[in-house]
Amino acid sequence: MNGKKGSCVEINIPSSDTTKSTKQQLESGKKKSAGNGGDLFSCKAWIEKVWEFAKEDSNRVIFSFKVGLAVLLVSLLILFRAPYEVFGTNIIWSILTVAIMFEYTVGATFNRGFNRALGSLLAGILAIGVAQMALSSGRGAEPFIIGTSIFFIGTVTSFMKLWPSLVPYEYGFRVILFTYCLIIVSGYRMGNPLRTAMDRLYSIAIGGFVAVLVNVLVFPIWAGEQLHKELVNNFNSVADSLEECVKKYLEDDGLDHPEFSNTVMDEFPDEPAYRKCKATLNSSAKLESLAISAKWEPPHGRFRHFFYPWSEYVKVGAVLRYCAYEVMALHGVLHSEIQAPYNLRITFQSEIQEVASQAAELVRCLGKDISNMERSLKTCLLKRVHSSTERLQRTIDMHSYLLTTTYCDPPPPPDNNSSKSVVLLPKLSSDLSNQLAELESKSLDKDSTPAVVVQGESYHEMMRKQSRRLHSWPSREVDAFAFEEEGGVDFLPRMRALESTAALSLATFTSLLIEFVVRLDHLVEAVDELSKMAKF
Amino acid sequence: MNGKKGSCVEINIPSSDTTKSTKQQLESGKKKSAGNGGDLFSCKAWIEKVWEFAKEDSNRVIFSFKVGLAVLLVSLLILFRAPYEVFGTNIIWSILTVAIMFEYTVGATFNRGFNRALGSLLAGILAIGVAQMALSSGRGAEPFIIGTSIFFIGTVTSFMKLWPSLVPYEYGFRVILFTYCLIIVSGYRMGNPLRTAMDRLYSIAIGGFVAVLVNVLVFPIWAGEQLHKELVNNFNSVADSLEECVKKYLEDDGLDHPEFSNTVMDEFPDEPAYRKCKATLNSSAKLESLAISAKWEPPHGRFRHFFYPWSEYVKVGAVLRYCAYEVMALHGVLHSEIQAPYNLRITFQSEIQEVASQAAELVRCLGKDISNMERSLKTCLLKRVHSSTERLQRTIDMHSYLLTTTYCDPPPPPDNNSSKSVVLLPKLSSDLSNQLAELESKSLDKDSTPAVVVQGESYHEMMRKQSRRLHSWPSREVDAFAFEEEGGVDFLPRMRALESTAALSLATFTSLLIEFVVRLDHLVEAVDELSKMAKF
Repeated sequence: MNGKKGSCVEINIPSSDTTKSTKQQLESGKKKSAGNGGDLFSCKAWIEKVWEFAKEDSNRVIFSFKVGLAVLLVSLLILFRAPYEVFGTNIIWSILTVAIMFEYTVGATFNRGFNRALGSLLAGILAIGVAQMALSSGRGAEPFIIGTSIFFIGTVTSFMKLWPSLVPYEYGFRVILFTYCLIIVSGYRMGNPLRTAMDRLYSIAIGGFVAVLVNVLVFPIWAGEQLHKELVNNFNSVADSLEECVKKYLEDDGLDHPEFSNTVMDEFPDEPAYRKCKATLNSSAKLESLAISAKWEPPHGRFRHFFYPWSEYVKVGAVLRYCAYEVMALHGVLHSEIQAPYNLRITFQSEIQEVASQAAELVRCLGKDISNMERSLKTCLLKRVHSSTERLQRTIDMHSYLLTTTYCDPPPPPDNNSSKSVVLLPKLSSDLSNQLAELESKSLDKDSTPAVVVQGESYHEMMRKQSRRLHSWPSREVDAFAFEEEGGVDFLPRMRALESTAALSLATFTSLLIEFVVRLDHLVEAVDELSKMAKF
Repeated sequence: MNGKKGSCVEINIPSSDTTKSTKQQLESGKKKSAGNGGDLFSCKAWIEKVWEFAKEDSNRVIFSFKVGLAVLLVSLLILFRAPYEVFGTNIIWSILTVAIMFEYTVGATFNRGFNRALGSLLAGILAIGVAQMALSSGRGAEPFIIGTSIFFIGTVTSFMKLWPSLVPYEYGFRVILFTYCLIIVSGYRMGNPLRTAMDRLYSIAIGGFVAVLVNVLVFPIWAGEQLHKELVNNFNSVADSLEECVKKYLEDDGLDHPEFSNTVMDEFPDEPAYRKCKATLNSSAKLESLAISAKWEPPHGRFRHFFYPWSEYVKVGAVLRYCAYEVMALHGVLHSEIQAPYNLRITFQSEIQEVASQAAELVRCLGKDISNMERSLKTCLLKRVHSSTERLQRTIDMHSYLLTTTYCDPPPPPDNNSSKSVVLLPKLSSDLSNQLAELESKSLDKDSTPAVVVQGESYHEMMRKQSRRLHSWPSREVDAFAFEEEGGVDFLPRMRALESTAALSLATFTSLLIEFVVRLDHLVEAVDELSKMAKF
């Protein structure tokens, strides 16, 4: 969490605050409802919440105390008589500087300090130049020149800070504007703009110096370290959510789905990893801002050499995000209304499970390598993932007739050639029900769900149930006229079309899983590139 | 673009600046390479770039001039003798206030002003209280009390601004910290903290007043209006990129694919709509921050009633983003290495095209309704999209044998029952090649691509080509040992497994398209909810 930048990163859904501290809020909610008795209890709950929050990341407390220390140190310059007599009232600018410059990480503080220093310097030079010009042009013209220059500086800095490549220096432009105005105006009223400018620069420099010193020397919070951890966490989130998603897909018996309308915007409380994965998708801005900050940091801790490739972290994060998009798509299939029947899903259980767990292991292993700053060959793991992916492909291939239609009466023949296939299909269908019956008995061995007799009829029964669920799409008017139009007569073929689509949803799931594996190669390459450049 | 917040929204990929002003940069690049002759020319190019940037959104120029005007107005208070004699040197605080408070939109300025006002007020009250206490405790204890209080305030405000629900008020906490320090320290050194506090509050109030007045009265840039436009743009981006993606999928002959490794992180220069769609995915922070700002704005322009449901815009944006995730997944299929052969894709051309164009039309229509603040029944359009989706489902269903395996020799029978299907499949395969030949001739009527004789052999030839492309996955080591292990003997079955997966990629594409249509219902509902609440 990184001050202002943090706020952009974390807010992404209307109820983002809930997302962040759900645990605490749930707890407090529980306590509020339980402890209506006294204020004492709610106060205790509140303290517990704060304690939890502080314990979650001790850097938060450290940061707070560091800010307190920095402003205290600067205030001492005024509270003690000696420095005050040297610097005068201008020393209050150093307090302002500390309060504005002190950021969460060392790099961000350096960055902000750079903006402030360069901005102040530029503004000082400009102000002195213009003030000298105004002075030499006579008392009458002076206010006009000063006024015009203020308008001009205000306009130009505001326009420049909108320029895309200058947006990161937005703060610097603000500093230029107000420092310029302050120096030139107080120079005009109090005389000697050069003196004003120098005094102010001194005190700003003192403030900046104190801020940097406290930030670097007292329990430094390095942006690089944070970036490193954040990336590793992202790897783990993607691995977790992949496993979670596949596990749910294979566990789910397809009947306890909540309404899609309730879940599309939902937090999926029973899927903690999905939430983390979604956070990964929105982490690009956070990684980027941490990388910008990290570039300002000197070599430190485990990152010992100059020009450490922080921007490479952002690139790896982007490739990882492309993998996460696939997980999001898998999650979409998991929660879509058109679902492959449970029996069909269970057919490929072991293959899907194997691919998913091996892919997740590879992702986790890559994350661990980055975390330990090691470089290890991923050939063995990659080989295993690829061979199990191939096994999945082959299994799908072998059983692909399961994914085809289950027509019992011939549809209108599309042309002369394909009429042959129409004749063949009913046989496939009967074969399918046999297959399903066998699978059902297999799945019954595993978990003791209530036995469903699977024959041609009961399978259709199940599908009809499913299609009914499908028709409860939120837009009721559409449903109404759809039934009206078709008058129930056309219902059966339509339902069968849905059956086929439902079966194909399994194909979608596996295709997306395979695509995830394909993207893993790029991830391995990106991590390899990073470890080369960072000299792991 | 919204100052600091804007920077977070726009930075998402390493080369985000290129993304934003690609057009200008391309132009300038062209000119740079062409016009090495003189500085005059490069200067002209630079002016042209700035001119382009300003013309792109005239609000940028308006905003810049407004800032200039606001600082000029405040400076006049000091440049003229009369107000200066009333307020004294403290008036420079109003300049600082204007420079810090002036934001791009009216709402953001109000928000920042509120933070500044409340922060200053709280700090003033605290400072006066502590100063009185310190004064009454005697001259000796005073610096200790003041020092301790500064440390305490610094620590507490820094901790509080990290609290998730308080992050948006980060600026307010900074204001509290430095205002408190400034008042209490200068009160200590210059005496009469109450007077210092009051003078400072006056001048801050004047600065805030000028900033708000200029921002509201001179060509106001309303956050609400921006949010409204941004949401409408998002609708159009999603519609455009859906159409673009489907068009490319059906146009693509599958052979001119660039290497995936080059494209995964690419900007896809030939797909302008995809870039916009990706921006839509990252727009959540922008929408959210605009909505926060818009809530501060009084009724204006087309948004005439109080408590306008700005947060509903964020919700609609979130539902739209869920649709955009599907478009991203479709795009993933389009650019994945495992591709359905062109002939297969062309089979469902008209149905896929129809669904896509109708879905895009519906999305565009929803955007237009929001844009015009109208409320119209989408029943007719929804009905059309649903019926063409059903047609697509039915067609897929009828031709689903095309998606199944093309085994010519029996694979090891998985069990007793399914051996029957293995016998049937070769027939399907021969049927498939007939079907493909017919389709090929159909597609030749449409566009005059060089004729490819499609028979059993040539189809396999094509697939072999494709599978070779597939094996050029970046991780070469893996490929090497894969071939080594299988020794070329096992190559044919493996290739066939890939064929089947390739065909299933079409199923994935259509499933994702259907899922997109399903999500449209939720989009229609969300827009309906918005139009009800906003009383369109």
